[in-house]
Amino acid sequence: MITISEVGPRDGVQSLDFLVDLDIKKRWVAAEAAAGVREIEVGSFVNYKRLPQMQDTAALVDFALGIPGLCVAVLVPNLRGAQTAVAAGVHKLSVPVSASETHSRNNVNRTHDQMIEEVRAIRALVDDQPEGARPSIEVGVATAFGCTMEGHVPERTVVALAERLMEAGASEVGLSDTTGYADPGMIRSRVTAVQRAVGAGNITGVHLHNTRGLGLANALAALECGLTTLDASLGGLGGCPFAPGASGNIVTEDLVFMLEAMGHATDIDLPALIEVRKALAADLPGSPLYGFVADAGLPLDFAPPSEAASLAGTQA
Amino acid sequence: MITISEVGPRDGVQSLDFLVDLDIKKRWVAAEAAAGVREIEVGSFVNYKRLPQMQDTAALVDFALGIPGLCVAVLVPNLRGAQTAVAAGVHKLSVPVSASETHSRNNVNRTHDQMIEEVRAIRALVDDQPEGARPSIEVGVATAFGCTMEGHVPERTVVALAERLMEAGASEVGLSDTTGYADPGMIRSRVTAVQRAVGAGNITGVHLHNTRGLGLANALAALECGLTTLDASLGGLGGCPFAPGASGNIVTEDLVFMLEAMGHATDIDLPALIEVRKALAADLPGSPLYGFVADAGLPLDFAPPSEAASLAGTQA
Repeated sequence: MITISEVGPRDGVQSLDFLVDLDIKKRWVAAEAAAGVREIEVGSFVNYKRLPQMQDTAALVDFALGIPGLCVAVLVPNLRGAQTAVAAGVHKLSVPVSASETHSRNNVNRTHDQMIEEVRAIRALVDDQPEGARPSIEVGVATAFGCTMEGHVPERTVVALAERLMEAGASEVGLSDTTGYADPGMIRSRVTAVQRAVGAGNITGVHLHNTRGLGLANALAALECGLTTLDASLGGLGGCPFAPGASGNIVTEDLVFMLEAMGHATDIDLPALIEVRKALAADLPGSPLYGFVADAGLPLDFAPPSEAASLAGTQA
Repeated sequence: MITISEVGPRDGVQSLDFLVDLDIKKRWVAAEAAAGVREIEVGSFVNYKRLPQMQDTAALVDFALGIPGLCVAVLVPNLRGAQTAVAAGVHKLSVPVSASETHSRNNVNRTHDQMIEEVRAIRALVDDQPEGARPSIEVGVATAFGCTMEGHVPERTVVALAERLMEAGASEVGLSDTTGYADPGMIRSRVTAVQRAVGAGNITGVHLHNTRGLGLANALAALECGLTTLDASLGGLGGCPFAPGASGNIVTEDLVFMLEAMGHATDIDLPALIEVRKALAADLPGSPLYGFVADAGLPLDFAPPSEAASLAGTQA
């Protein structure tokens, strides 16, 4: 079972140059959840002057929390954002900490040391909450495969940062290819190195972009390392507005097709997901959507793993 | 060292709805060869009433044979095409034999048994030539991962066909994802099965399409099986006009980026290749080109394996 974490309502829309209506976001989140997506990063609690696209995050969180069985995640760059998120009752905090100091300063205006302290403060905040109201803290190591401003980011920097983040109180760490610099060899090497350093149970996911077309090949390499959570964005919407040239998350529907074709269950109804994409395309006219499966259609005789297993008379 | 076999001048242009000038094809072939591409499938000797796009193949072969160090391949569907190709002096014959009988009849109007006999006759023809004038016979098992008309194609059908083709005189067999149905798991399973059946030395390549976005992930799986030749098309031009919905080869420049980033030398100058793509785009206005690296650019500090090795003080 592989978990797809849909990041489109956060990472996808933040790169659009027009504000997306809250109603559109609600329809999108509800429809993806109905198609079987079990985790959605719905927005971020940030400075809305810098990212006005995110100003309706509280309302969207409130809506998403009403959807049974959905894990509601939000991005928070600091303690202040985490306070808002915890008060809103989210299930998961996604905290970006950039391996590149230059990107860290551009993205969240903080150094590594400051971000480590921020994570420590967020941990204290969470631990102060009553049981049942403590979101998990997933720290994404951004620019973990290279930076458009600094270029090469050494593997040892990523590993050392992951160790410090776990020590500071992260529930788990993930690696983010913010800039689309990763290749499958680098994924294997860095994921394995971090697994060794912090324990395989403390790194379950990656956040990949498709900037140079390698997104699904990189996802395959991550799967082979044993990772079980993959971020993706419906129609490949997305990118980081503060890392020039970094556009396009991996495409949720193409990723789901790859996984299900390989026999990895996702619990997502792929035809239904393709319908959600169509509705989103209609809701966001003029926004480029990426991906191939929606246009090409599913192969003849295509059966998701659950059906294939039940056809074969084995347990799903 | 991985060999990229550029199939754009054959597989790419045959799906266009206008005739590409011979001069454009010559510029394209010469420029790709100059960028370091060592094998190009320049056309096919077929019924030109059915595929008028290929009617200048003899002239293009003649031109390409003048490029030092370039392996000149052509597709031939039968003995008659092979006779023309041998007379023209090509280095490699690419013979498509479809694992799906339905596709075989649509594509080359012949059954499996008839195609096996065709390969046997082509072998006899080649063996009749003087030494030094005998092209290799590479048989591509088309629809090896599924068929848009038949659906599922059993693995045992593909393996049995590969064995019969080797017995009939193929120099080697390859597997072609004509329809874009392959996934990385299927690539591994079928390539490994064919390697076991005919010997790993007799299957070195795959021909992949990117119809459902899995092209580079599938290429990665093929690499992991030890394959060393990958077909690709500049800008992802291509598809099979007789298999509905089967569009888009994997993108040469994105594939080269993946390989070089992973440390697999290709001997191709990637910035030069991207310039060739730009020239091709200008030569074919209105034709959709695919791929990401050309737009995104190479990562900062990107070094091809030869340079990376020499920077590290090791042998390239």
